[in-house]
Amino acid sequence: MSYVLGHNQYGKAEVHVVRVFRDDPDAPHELVDYNVSVSLTGDFDDAHTSGDQAKVLTTDACKNTVNAFAKEAGDAVREPESFAVALADHFIEVPQVSAARITVDAVPWVRSHGHAHAFVKNGDYVRTATVTRTADDTSVVSGLKELTVLKTTDSEFHGFYQDKYTTLQPTNDRIMATAVTAQWAHDGADIGTGIDWGKAFDEVLDAITGSFAAAYSYALQHTLWEMGTAVLDAVPSIAEVRFSCPNKHHFVVDLSPFGVENNCEVHHAADRPYGLIEATIKRSEDVDMSSAYDPGQAW
Amino acid sequence: MSYVLGHNQYGKAEVHVVRVFRDDPDAPHELVDYNVSVSLTGDFDDAHTSGDQAKVLTTDACKNTVNAFAKEAGDAVREPESFAVALADHFIEVPQVSAARITVDAVPWVRSHGHAHAFVKNGDYVRTATVTRTADDTSVVSGLKELTVLKTTDSEFHGFYQDKYTTLQPTNDRIMATAVTAQWAHDGADIGTGIDWGKAFDEVLDAITGSFAAAYSYALQHTLWEMGTAVLDAVPSIAEVRFSCPNKHHFVVDLSPFGVENNCEVHHAADRPYGLIEATIKRSEDVDMSSAYDPGQAW
Amino acid sequence: MSYVLGHNQYGKAEVHVVRVFRDDPDAPHELVDYNVSVSLTGDFDDAHTSGDQAKVLTTDACKNTVNAFAKEAGDAVREPESFAVALADHFIEVPQVSAARITVDAVPWVRSHGHAHAFVKNGDYVRTATVTRTADDTSVVSGLKELTVLKTTDSEFHGFYQDKYTTLQPTNDRIMATAVTAQWAHDGADIGTGIDWGKAFDEVLDAITGSFAAAYSYALQHTLWEMGTAVLDAVPSIAEVRFSCPNKHHFVVDLSPFGVENNCEVHHAADRPYGLIEATIKRSEDVDMSSAYDPGQAW
Amino acid sequence: MSYVLGHNQYGKAEVHVVRVFRDDPDAPHELVDYNVSVSLTGDFDDAHTSGDQAKVLTTDACKNTVNAFAKEAGDAVREPESFAVALADHFIEVPQVSAARITVDAVPWVRSHGHAHAFVKNGDYVRTATVTRTADDTSVVSGLKELTVLKTTDSEFHGFYQDKYTTLQPTNDRIMATAVTAQWAHDGADIGTGIDWGKAFDEVLDAITGSFAAAYSYALQHTLWEMGTAVLDAVPSIAEVRFSCPNKHHFVVDLSPFGVENNCEVHHAADRPYGLIEATIKRSEDVDMSSAYDPGQAW
Repeated sequence: MSYVLGHNQYGKAEVHVVRVFRDDPDAPHELVDYNVSVSLTGDFDDAHTSGDQAKVLTTDACKNTVNAFAKEAGDAVREPESFAVALADHFIEVPQVSAARITVDAVPWVRSHGHAHAFVKNGDYVRTATVTRTADDTSVVSGLKELTVLKTTDSEFHGFYQDKYTTLQPTNDRIMATAVTAQWAHDGADIGTGIDWGKAFDEVLDAITGSFAAAYSYALQHTLWEMGTAVLDAVPSIAEVRFSCPNKHHFVVDLSPFGVENNCEVHHAADRPYGLIEATIKRSEDVDMSSAYDPGQAW
Repeated sequence: MSYVLGHNQYGKAEVHVVRVFRDDPDAPHELVDYNVSVSLTGDFDDAHTSGDQAKVLTTDACKNTVNAFAKEAGDAVREPESFAVALADHFIEVPQVSAARITVDAVPWVRSHGHAHAFVKNGDYVRTATVTRTADDTSVVSGLKELTVLKTTDSEFHGFYQDKYTTLQPTNDRIMATAVTAQWAHDGADIGTGIDWGKAFDEVLDAITGSFAAAYSYALQHTLWEMGTAVLDAVPSIAEVRFSCPNKHHFVVDLSPFGVENNCEVHHAADRPYGLIEATIKRSEDVDMSSAYDPGQAW
Repeated sequence: MSYVLGHNQYGKAEVHVVRVFRDDPDAPHELVDYNVSVSLTGDFDDAHTSGDQAKVLTTDACKNTVNAFAKEAGDAVREPESFAVALADHFIEVPQVSAARITVDAVPWVRSHGHAHAFVKNGDYVRTATVTRTADDTSVVSGLKELTVLKTTDSEFHGFYQDKYTTLQPTNDRIMATAVTAQWAHDGADIGTGIDWGKAFDEVLDAITGSFAAAYSYALQHTLWEMGTAVLDAVPSIAEVRFSCPNKHHFVVDLSPFGVENNCEVHHAADRPYGLIEATIKRSEDVDMSSAYDPGQAW
Repeated sequence: MSYVLGHNQYGKAEVHVVRVFRDDPDAPHELVDYNVSVSLTGDFDDAHTSGDQAKVLTTDACKNTVNAFAKEAGDAVREPESFAVALADHFIEVPQVSAARITVDAVPWVRSHGHAHAFVKNGDYVRTATVTRTADDTSVVSGLKELTVLKTTDSEFHGFYQDKYTTLQPTNDRIMATAVTAQWAHDGADIGTGIDWGKAFDEVLDAITGSFAAAYSYALQHTLWEMGTAVLDAVPSIAEVRFSCPNKHHFVVDLSPFGVENNCEVHHAADRPYGLIEATIKRSEDVDMSSAYDPGQAW
């Protein structure tokens, strides 16, 4: 019955914080995307053996600290190692902590088209093609999955419908991010004449990322329309394009309890729930490409 | 340039809501665990083509509605179909909505040991065994991964350490949930004499789920200690047990903006971040089983 | 330049072997489902520093050994710990191995309906419901995702069409396994009168698992038909049921190079590719429930 | 009882085929990496309702066809759309097939350092940093996860140890691929003087991909050593580097039953099992960075 508590540690794992650097209004934005885990070791036996929490710094406070430091730690935020050092230096000051371990996973983003505030997650997509063949007909649908794009400004959302459950505040400046999954169906007549598939894909990829970066956005729906028309402009053989785009919400973290201003700089990147926006943009009213898609077990 | 908007729909996906039924203080608690997606079709073309959101019910309001209905919809909440019907009946009343589609994924929980408020996610674990053999020695570590357990009450958290980043409010009643990953090392002398591995595993499984259900908890750390000592009590050949337990946070949703009381009934089950609590409980101070674990590329 | 090789280890990870115990023709079958990883440490520096492999036991041989031992190790195969000990005792005999570490992940299967050779992966599914509501109409589709079932015999596959690429050998006895994803649409008239959703789900679950266990199978397609008709028999309000079922192939491992007979006992559970079988079974020819499913971005 | 079979389709999903173009010995290699799914619709009712398979082209033959066409289809293999068309044109010739649907997912690879036969999966990694802080000491471990690299030649494996379970054939030419997960610990003295973390990471990334491309390989172990010494050469502050590298096996598909030669061109990319190779390369014998890593719940 006189068992012994061996090694133990605790902390907050996977605080997903996205920091935008936007102090200089004339300079291009920069951003870091970190998934931060904090693990503390020290004099925490009582928390286990008697349930006394007097020495436990809450994991919620660990999370708050990560978020606050994403603003307060200055240039140390720019590299995962220096950010982790800044956090570790802070937590080791808690008297009952004997060792603080900080782990940061940094997601690589690259600037899109040299744009000042539009980014693409590096290489993070799969190219797709679906061909349906009957005795008389061949349809070709090209696509891509999980092309993750983000812009740090030039995105608003306001003027929306209000009901009793509407509590969202309108905004004139927000991060907008999505993982584009799209499919575009080629006109049957063009397929027969020979399409340069690789070139067409590159043109669509450029149209999607280019219009996402350039178009001022009043909603993700609005951006889908802009991307869709850009695709139709770019490649004449495409009859319609379908999008399915999760709105990957980035919430501005309230840092005011800690006396820190947050001017759309420190965001929590949420996992779930997410808005899911889907639309088809067609070259004309009479386009019907439904037979080019899976007729099967739609869910 | 006169492109056409085809089929489009939007909504909030994967609102992860856990509803506890606890009205009758003498009755066993019940719960449902739903992942709800809302998809709306209707007169939403302007949101795409001109960026005008005047007819758009925000996806945030969709989320709020799901959460509020988890309390307001009464007995309809108890089955996914009737909950989906209640939500669909609500959204179809929005004038510009022509079709509302609600999808509910329901996770199966089963009552643990017949307990009034402790549950186990049905069958959701893998049994593990690791054997390390040198010329002279055999060590055996048994374990399990991802045994998900939850209790709807008998869990408190307060009296914790406060620093400038501490904003968490203390609580005397909360949901506590975790996915237990554990490994237990058997004493080398016992291995030679023959252990009934299947029986030992069943006894550990019973000790973990039983003590999780029965022990009043002042913190997840406290519960780890209770589970660990129960394991050592149950199986004499076990020298130590190691736990790695994410604190799967269930946040009480604020329903007061909608005039709905929420008495620890409607919760948001968050994905990230999560507290990660790890501890080793040993039979005595001189137990050292480190050579039984992977010496390799510790991360 | 005189760098030093520190700790190193190697081996084969995740050998997914399923062993059926079927020696006694009158006894119920039993099975274990193991994911086995082998890690070896020892005198392997030359493999790194000079590229000399003379002391390296190939990871392919490690895999072969796991498969052979799934038959040769007798009753030790029945528990993950004793199987791991048997393997570790074997690998430690390789002269240049100083430590052998075996890790086994065991998936829990439970017997279905007390059946002699049909099993269900314990609790491994999600219940689903999709409601679509227009001004005039409510449709309800219930379903389940990833109900994994397996039978160790009473499954044949032969008499199939042959083309120049057909190399598959016909079989009169094989493991058949699938992860059932199904949706069933309720007749609109019944929805209005009130359906006991929980009872209906339980009846469908019983019909699917019961018919999978009981029906002799000539193909997975055949079993889909049997499950579908059982569902329609069980619940009168269901107008149609749709299945999407990956054929989770279990290949009999060739143990003859090691002088070991394999009478449909030791199988490799493959990940990819897999047959994907989909079908709709309807109560009558004029059933059309297509509006009850997602009209959106079919892929 | 006279139920009706509605829409049904079947086929082989996720045939993961990697084709190398290497006809011209003087030209750089090229490759495509496809995950191909085949779905057939037609006169297949009997397979369901009576279990008669006389019209069923096996999904195994579908797989064989995909593999054979990866060689036989000539330049059509180079783009996913044209490859899918070639396959669809083939399957529609099966008399009982009324519609053939082919879906191809193409993974983007980019040439590494302009090398003739070394490739990197585009952008597919996460950068990591782990800092451990005690009262007196700060340790910094940098790393990356899941950097996927592949070379299409300059890789051999032979001369290995033989036991009774060894059936692997030696090879002088093979694809070698791995997903590099690595961590490197910086010397404590250097940390205090200030390291340019971003520059150090870029140098390590370049050292790993550069040495993977350039070094002739006699085993994955051999390549780990080459990568590790290149890292130590590149960044003086690094005391040791640890690798954990799954050997992502690419098996040459036997096309001889179809009369097709396969000169290391068409490969099956297997999921499991895989060799798992781990090693630490240190600057000198007395380097001990173990306290820089997680002391916790090693599994």
